Amino acid sequence: MGHDKQAVRRVLDAVLAEGRSALTAPEGRTLCDAYGIPAAAEGLARSAEQAVLLAADIGGPVALKIVSPEILHKTEAGCVLTGIEGAQNVRAGYETILDRARRYDANATLTGVQVQQMITGGHEVIIGATTDPTFGKVVAFGLGGVLVEVLEDVTFRMAPINASEARGMLGDIKAAAVLRGARGAEPVDAAGLAGVLHRLSALVTDFPEISEFDLNPVFAAPSGAIAADVRVLLDPDGARRPRRRSREEILRAMNKLMRPASVAVIGASNEDGKIGNSVLRNLADGGYGGRILPVNPKADTVLGHRAYRSIGDVPGEVDVAVFAVPAKFVPAALEECGAKGVAAAVLIPSGFAETGETALQDEVVAIAEKHGIRLLGPNIYGYYYTPHDLCATFCTPYDVRGGVALTSQSGGIGMAILGFSRTTRTGVSAIVGLGNKSDVDEDDLLAFFEQDEHTKCVAMHLEDLKDGRAFVDAARRITRTKPVVVLKAGRTELGARAASSHTGALAGDDKVYDDVLRQAGVVRAPGLNDMLEYARGLPVLPTPQGENVVIITGAGGSGVLLSDACVANGLRLMDVPPDLDEAFRRHIPPFGAAGNPIDITGGEPPRTYEETIRLGLRDPRVHALILGYWHTIVTPPMVFAELTARVVAEARAEGISKPVVASLAGDVEVEQASDHLYDRGVVAYPYTTEKPVAVLGAKYQWARAAGLLD
Amino acid sequence: MGHDKQAVRRVLDAVLAEGRSALTAPEGRTLCDAYGIPAAAEGLARSAEQAVLLAADIGGPVALKIVSPEILHKTEAGCVLTGIEGAQNVRAGYETILDRARRYDANATLTGVQVQQMITGGHEVIIGATTDPTFGKVVAFGLGGVLVEVLEDVTFRMAPINASEARGMLGDIKAAAVLRGARGAEPVDAAGLAGVLHRLSALVTDFPEISEFDLNPVFAAPSGAIAADVRVLLDPDGARRPRRRSREEILRAMNKLMRPASVAVIGASNEDGKIGNSVLRNLADGGYGGRILPVNPKADTVLGHRAYRSIGDVPGEVDVAVFAVPAKFVPAALEECGAKGVAAAVLIPSGFAETGETALQDEVVAIAEKHGIRLLGPNIYGYYYTPHDLCATFCTPYDVRGGVALTSQSGGIGMAILGFSRTTRTGVSAIVGLGNKSDVDEDDLLAFFEQDEHTKCVAMHLEDLKDGRAFVDAARRITRTKPVVVLKAGRTELGARAASSHTGALAGDDKVYDDVLRQAGVVRAPGLNDMLEYARGLPVLPTPQGENVVIITGAGGSGVLLSDACVANGLRLMDVPPDLDEAFRRHIPPFGAAGNPIDITGGEPPRTYEETIRLGLRDPRVHALILGYWHTIVTPPMVFAELTARVVAEARAEGISKPVVASLAGDVEVEQASDHLYDRGVVAYPYTTEKPVAVLGAKYQWARAAGLLD
Repeated sequence: MGHDKQAVRRVLDAVLAEGRSALTAPEGRTLCDAYGIPAAAEGLARSAEQAVLLAADIGGPVALKIVSPEILHKTEAGCVLTGIEGAQNVRAGYETILDRARRYDANATLTGVQVQQMITGGHEVIIGATTDPTFGKVVAFGLGGVLVEVLEDVTFRMAPINASEARGMLGDIKAAAVLRGARGAEPVDAAGLAGVLHRLSALVTDFPEISEFDLNPVFAAPSGAIAADVRVLLDPDGARRPRRRSREEILRAMNKLMRPASVAVIGASNEDGKIGNSVLRNLADGGYGGRILPVNPKADTVLGHRAYRSIGDVPGEVDVAVFAVPAKFVPAALEECGAKGVAAAVLIPSGFAETGETALQDEVVAIAEKHGIRLLGPNIYGYYYTPHDLCATFCTPYDVRGGVALTSQSGGIGMAILGFSRTTRTGVSAIVGLGNKSDVDEDDLLAFFEQDEHTKCVAMHLEDLKDGRAFVDAARRITRTKPVVVLKAGRTELGARAASSHTGALAGDDKVYDDVLRQAGVVRAPGLNDMLEYARGLPVLPTPQGENVVIITGAGGSGVLLSDACVANGLRLMDVPPDLDEAFRRHIPPFGAAGNPIDITGGEPPRTYEETIRLGLRDPRVHALILGYWHTIVTPPMVFAELTARVVAEARAEGISKPVVASLAGDVEVEQASDHLYDRGVVAYPYTTEKPVAVLGAKYQWARAAGLLD
Repeated sequence: MGHDKQAVRRVLDAVLAEGRSALTAPEGRTLCDAYGIPAAAEGLARSAEQAVLLAADIGGPVALKIVSPEILHKTEAGCVLTGIEGAQNVRAGYETILDRARRYDANATLTGVQVQQMITGGHEVIIGATTDPTFGKVVAFGLGGVLVEVLEDVTFRMAPINASEARGMLGDIKAAAVLRGARGAEPVDAAGLAGVLHRLSALVTDFPEISEFDLNPVFAAPSGAIAADVRVLLDPDGARRPRRRSREEILRAMNKLMRPASVAVIGASNEDGKIGNSVLRNLADGGYGGRILPVNPKADTVLGHRAYRSIGDVPGEVDVAVFAVPAKFVPAALEECGAKGVAAAVLIPSGFAETGETALQDEVVAIAEKHGIRLLGPNIYGYYYTPHDLCATFCTPYDVRGGVALTSQSGGIGMAILGFSRTTRTGVSAIVGLGNKSDVDEDDLLAFFEQDEHTKCVAMHLEDLKDGRAFVDAARRITRTKPVVVLKAGRTELGARAASSHTGALAGDDKVYDDVLRQAGVVRAPGLNDMLEYARGLPVLPTPQGENVVIITGAGGSGVLLSDACVANGLRLMDVPPDLDEAFRRHIPPFGAAGNPIDITGGEPPRTYEETIRLGLRDPRVHALILGYWHTIVTPPMVFAELTARVVAEARAEGISKPVVASLAGDVEVEQASDHLYDRGVVAYPYTTEKPVAVLGAKYQWARAAGLLD
């Protein structure tokens, strides 16, 4: 269906020309018509006789409502009549409404009376669009009525959405079963309903000055969906968009930043305890292979490296300048970096926007923009890029190379990342502090990590996004091939925001983040420790090829808890086919339980674990294994760990690569056994049935979003 | 209001005498009247003229419904007419219904036609009672309508409930705000609604043969609550109750079991690797101070202890016999124990009900009952009671004494308890395996732990309860003084149960457990690791005296995550009064943030942590502290740990005892710092903002349920 953009343009131009921000109902109806959104039949009557003709045309009972730019609360003014039928009643109603309107506001312009088809039947739903401060235009869908308002059962997507996303929204509310026809009712016209969402998304995308759009209620019936009421608000500033760099431009700078051939340290110092001393020492101790260039106006060498009075004195190109000077000295030094042609500046110092020094930060950003320098920070611990042994931070070096890149907005969380990674020997490609995000932010890093062959997974702690749309664009690209885990801090409602539309009032800050991050294919971690565990585990696990998960356990008790965890993490226990069930039964005692979980029972020898695990790995219908180990004398922890690692390695050698996770219940030896397994690609934990399943669940969540399981 | 039990008795006796299990609507109405449950006015008409008179009496439109024991699906039979008004219409309606009933079932007894008041207005709610396999009579409350059925927003309590519990149920559904008057509506008559719940609870308690009772819908309005439809089902067997021991009887036996003066080991062995060898070795190595009595028909001594051919040969009394012989030898040996007067038998062997050998288990239980022996197990690892250095298990001894008693139904989970406790040095009073629970179960243990001065907190893993009411009784008693944490495994729905009532259909297995455990004052742990962490932390934390929680953090990023965790765990961040805010501000930098969280900012010296923590401890309006530490050079981890432990100890010396928990973000040194704090009464974790707050939340949940915060 074509969209009549000109018709919309005409209405909006006229409204804006009159200095109005709210559309009248007939104007809203025109917008709906132009984009093929079914709305109740209606018309504007400028006389009682016109109203009678319109009502006759529409047929059946009608609603009468005042149309006046000044009267926004029509019901309060007594200017809404419903269920009016018959010429005489319509005529009387028309006069009543005008009369009440005049008494309500003697100065109001009374454009006329809206005569509208009464719609009933079907389920009341709300479809709307609002302008989110982070993500811009978002569309919303929920069931109408007081219950849903109380239960806040609503779902959001960043606009524009495609037809499949629109369809997905219908199933994404908790009460979705109502639409599918609960208790034997006929299902509603899902295609029609999704079509309304899809078209509304196109409309607000084409006309960004539409700030709010409520279709409330929409009556969804088996025969179709039709909006009974339309409410539209404009914001002439809504069309503005933040500046965007091209992908090429971003990648050029980010590759200089993350893989520099030379790093200068502004404020490098020989004095122990100074940040400029720690940074230089870490660069050198970390084994960085590029040129290390201390800048210090008073020293000839710093820690044995030839030093320069200023960055301008450095011979050759400088890719990165790490700032280890107090905030007040940053602008002048950054000017010198600009003159030198430095590609990126890493601003460790605090004392900028986070302490209220916004003007100083703005000044620094302006200097950087003038010279085309990208800024990381300020107010950060620095960053690591292990493939180049780059450790440009005042924290201690980190050298366990691996596939996960971690970033944090907060320094405290950055330190937790470092400590956790070190103690768990997590293989890391990069750790990056973002701090105040005066320039480089999460989407720049995602662009880099997407094309970085060393990074297999990204985990990000963030409190806000500067440009939510840029983040979503970058996340959608990278998550096709690599999982992205996000810890979004600040779940608490920001309190009631000044919402002038119904949709806006439903758009709690965290709910929009939650839905849009999922839309972008991102796995949201519920807490800090979850983010860290997902980061550690996701690059270790192979990508599953399907949804069939099998639990093999030596302890029935663990099996029950592992099943609970599967439900909690959206994993599907395989309905084991009879031949496979039979095959499993051959390896387990007669009183063991096949089915799923497969309870091999306690007290079994290593061979029982080995054969059942091998069977699960080799059968192509099984896509992932969850193992529950129970510490016994017959199969001690390390025996279990070694046999499991061996069987998994054998299968991988044969080209069979399936995710395997394990929960080890036992005395303290299970800790060493878990480490042994983790180091060999089996995500294993002692004393918990939840964590291994949660990590597997995160891998599945990503794989589904990336379309790898269809 | 009095209850007319005789009226109910007459109806039930008459129905049961006729061999019916379903009450007719008028019979149901009689039950309501007898217990003061308001129900729609109605009467039974045996002629059209009677119907006309009844309708005139009731006034307004009425509903007409067939009354026939054979016609249960009245609507399907076309035998329900609604909105009938006026003598002529009532008369016609009466004839129509009888006509349709005869055509539907020519052989049906047509008792007459029910003439019922039509009720509209208010919110439709459902109030019901059903018979749960675990907890017996439970009452249910939820909002009516398809939405709530889809969202399963319903709450249960074990009957009988008191008035305050009834009132609590109204607030315990997600959509509770609807009843309180969402969107400016008038609130419903909560007292009236709660009264219906309370009276229904009394009715099904007084008459256990009532198996199902639906009041659906009940119309809840500001003016009162009135049931529009009543449906009652009987089960003559519903009155049977499981056998109960008196509390004195239970305690006498449990004290013998847990604190025996002598322990015999049936099947004690000199052969390494045998269970009877491990058990005896552990008893001796664990340092048990009572008499250790090996029983072995072929040995004179076992591991240096004088052995006996049979238990009958042992001189003096034997409190406990631990069985370490194969299952088939248990009955004979247990008979000998009975002859000897042994108080309790601990059945380690497997090979009973869990492997299908139900008859053997029944035989053993019968022998025990005959002799008055209490049985622990079978199919268990044994048990520990550290105050007496008692280690009657084949697992290794455990000697960190402390306040938590842990029990598990599964051996695997028992091993996880042991390993976790050992690695975290959790102070333990008892670890008990329950296995098949042929006799001793959770309520017996709760009775013991309640009066055990060494136990401060109980944590239990369970998959089912043999006698849910006995458990709730015991839990209600002990939770007044000691927290009980339960990990209930098996959250997954057991599939649709054969439900003949609406309430029964809503009573999903886990939902009833969840509500009733909460009703009993129990803290339900969401997973195994949570249960273990709660068990470790709850005895360490003092009981809070009020709801005012304050976060003090060195890292703003942690502060946000800690706030999120407070919301997730039902904790209330204190609204810091201006004078206290001012006092905090004196210690923190001007760009720090007072309020709550109090962000002292990174890079602060130890003194800032110390003074703000001291302030929070000393101000009597603050009830609990959550600390967020950020690793810096200025305040290294152990410096933070030592100062915090010192300030907390100082406060305790002054009689100030408040729960303090901490999240440490930093490099690996924070692990040692966390241990240091934990050992000194501050529940502290590295790399997580969630866990310390979850443990504090669990403590609060218990304290609220115990009525300590009112």
